[in-house]
Amino acid sequence: MGMTQQTIQLGRRPKGTPTYEDFNFVEAPIGSPDKGEVLVRTVYISVDPYLRGRMNEGKSYIPPFEVGEVISSAVIAQVEKSNSDRFSEGDVVIGSLGWQEYSVVKDNEVRKVDHHQAPASAYLSVLGMTGLTAYFGLLDIGKPKEGETVVVSGAAGAVGSVVGQIAKLKGARVVGIAGSDEKTSYLKDTLGFDATINYKTEDIAQALKDACPDGIDVYFENVGGEVGDAVFPLLNNFARIPVCGAISSYNNTEPDLGPRVQGYLIKTSSLMQGFTVGNYSSRFKEGAEALAGWLSEGKLTYEETITEGFDHTIDAFLDLFKGANTGKAVVKVSEIQE
Amino acid sequence: MGMTQQTIQLGRRPKGTPTYEDFNFVEAPIGSPDKGEVLVRTVYISVDPYLRGRMNEGKSYIPPFEVGEVISSAVIAQVEKSNSDRFSEGDVVIGSLGWQEYSVVKDNEVRKVDHHQAPASAYLSVLGMTGLTAYFGLLDIGKPKEGETVVVSGAAGAVGSVVGQIAKLKGARVVGIAGSDEKTSYLKDTLGFDATINYKTEDIAQALKDACPDGIDVYFENVGGEVGDAVFPLLNNFARIPVCGAISSYNNTEPDLGPRVQGYLIKTSSLMQGFTVGNYSSRFKEGAEALAGWLSEGKLTYEETITEGFDHTIDAFLDLFKGANTGKAVVKVSEIQE
Repeated sequence: MGMTQQTIQLGRRPKGTPTYEDFNFVEAPIGSPDKGEVLVRTVYISVDPYLRGRMNEGKSYIPPFEVGEVISSAVIAQVEKSNSDRFSEGDVVIGSLGWQEYSVVKDNEVRKVDHHQAPASAYLSVLGMTGLTAYFGLLDIGKPKEGETVVVSGAAGAVGSVVGQIAKLKGARVVGIAGSDEKTSYLKDTLGFDATINYKTEDIAQALKDACPDGIDVYFENVGGEVGDAVFPLLNNFARIPVCGAISSYNNTEPDLGPRVQGYLIKTSSLMQGFTVGNYSSRFKEGAEALAGWLSEGKLTYEETITEGFDHTIDAFLDLFKGANTGKAVVKVSEIQE
Repeated sequence: MGMTQQTIQLGRRPKGTPTYEDFNFVEAPIGSPDKGEVLVRTVYISVDPYLRGRMNEGKSYIPPFEVGEVISSAVIAQVEKSNSDRFSEGDVVIGSLGWQEYSVVKDNEVRKVDHHQAPASAYLSVLGMTGLTAYFGLLDIGKPKEGETVVVSGAAGAVGSVVGQIAKLKGARVVGIAGSDEKTSYLKDTLGFDATINYKTEDIAQALKDACPDGIDVYFENVGGEVGDAVFPLLNNFARIPVCGAISSYNNTEPDLGPRVQGYLIKTSSLMQGFTVGNYSSRFKEGAEALAGWLSEGKLTYEETITEGFDHTIDAFLDLFKGANTGKAVVKVSEIQE
């Protein structure tokens, strides 16, 4: 090899909404694998809202990126050269890898995926972290029962779209909140949601009241902010709120103020539970099998917003905060070689 | 009898903090018990913050008082005349009764308490609703483990003081927040809390940080508002927040705005669970036995703020919102006749 590649480093900590200037493209050598290592070529990069949190300083559930560090996220890659008996050239693998065109990694840092069973990118979405996030958050915390009303925000996103579909499979009435008419049409026409709300054009409080005449039993929180605020007055007794994301506030530079929730929780004996998918790592197999089963039975569909080309990785990331994606946002960096 | 008595009716719905003018003293006949009924004389009236919520219109976990209706709450009374084979004259009973000097009630609306085993008023506090509220909220939702940090607000109140003591019995480090130096001294010197904060004189955010160098594992929420706000940035991973009360907001006429909590819950995978003691009615026996056991072993102490005289019932209620009480606030209306 002996060649160089592009990598994307955090150039500085974003203030508010990230911009191009917060990142640096840096040329770096392509390494070569030592014993027990593999050289992989990046195929798909997952861009995710939670990465914004890692660009800040301070404790969270995963350590922050350092300035000058290559950004990393879930990546699908193909083995170019193996110095490990666990992998052969051509294997397609998944792991938490850098935003770069090639990576040299230890053989225990990636695992094989079967890209003949499902498209490789699906392992970044419906069969991967976002699908598992939907599965465990909804079923373990939300616990929807037949006939209950489940509201999901960010409903056309990678997590929300799976949440809504699983809730339908469990017999719930599903109301999806999204930010464009194109997205709400997708939710109703393709995914079979019972009702939808475009929070950008509708009065969210009134629209939610209209869409939930029997109140709200489960609210899957992906966005926070005023959308979340509108839910609390409509909670039924013993409602459950899996708190998965709050994308509306990730770029805030001012305190994120809204109505305090204690009174609503007391009146209805409701539960809010923050979570990250990593809490369920001991049960990933169960979740992945259930999702793969539904997918193969045609009970689960998924959408991807694919940005072509490593050079556009930052665009794809910034687009998340404009609500530009439907389903999972991924960057396609190279083709899988059969 | 054929005589009359004083009753206290809701005169109008309070706007903001209740005042005397929201209540009417109304003279009413003392009834006489039909078959299966008893006439009881009021001994102690429980005044509780949650009653404020019942003075508003609109749904909550219990129906609102109507204007012109006699206020009711937990009451200890003594049987004056029994027309039921379940009760004899002189029996001391507890029930949800009106704010009046005498009541005629069906014999299934009250139950006997043993005022020789514990003072009768204890059945309104440590052995009654507030003790059970502390017991189930802390143990069922808060689940404190040995060595964890438990923070309780309203710590010198009827619920908070029991929460802190049970947390100590479970081996936790207990930090109490209260509104006077007299109360914080009581918490430390009499109840053995590990640290205390006077939220009226200290910078609550800084004081909490100082008092909780290892973060917060359990926050028992009694007050809401800025005290609650200060807790969220200090939550440890998998923290639990039983949400029992939000007295700081009960009299608000403006929206109660504060930092939204979603981001904090996600970062720490923390849980907030609203509850009312009624959710645990099927387990009251378990709770009451545990509390009575600790009380008789001297492991649990309790305080009462007793206001003397039926005429001062409204004062006792209004005092709750001034933080005037330590421990359970009760009104003593008459003496138990042995």
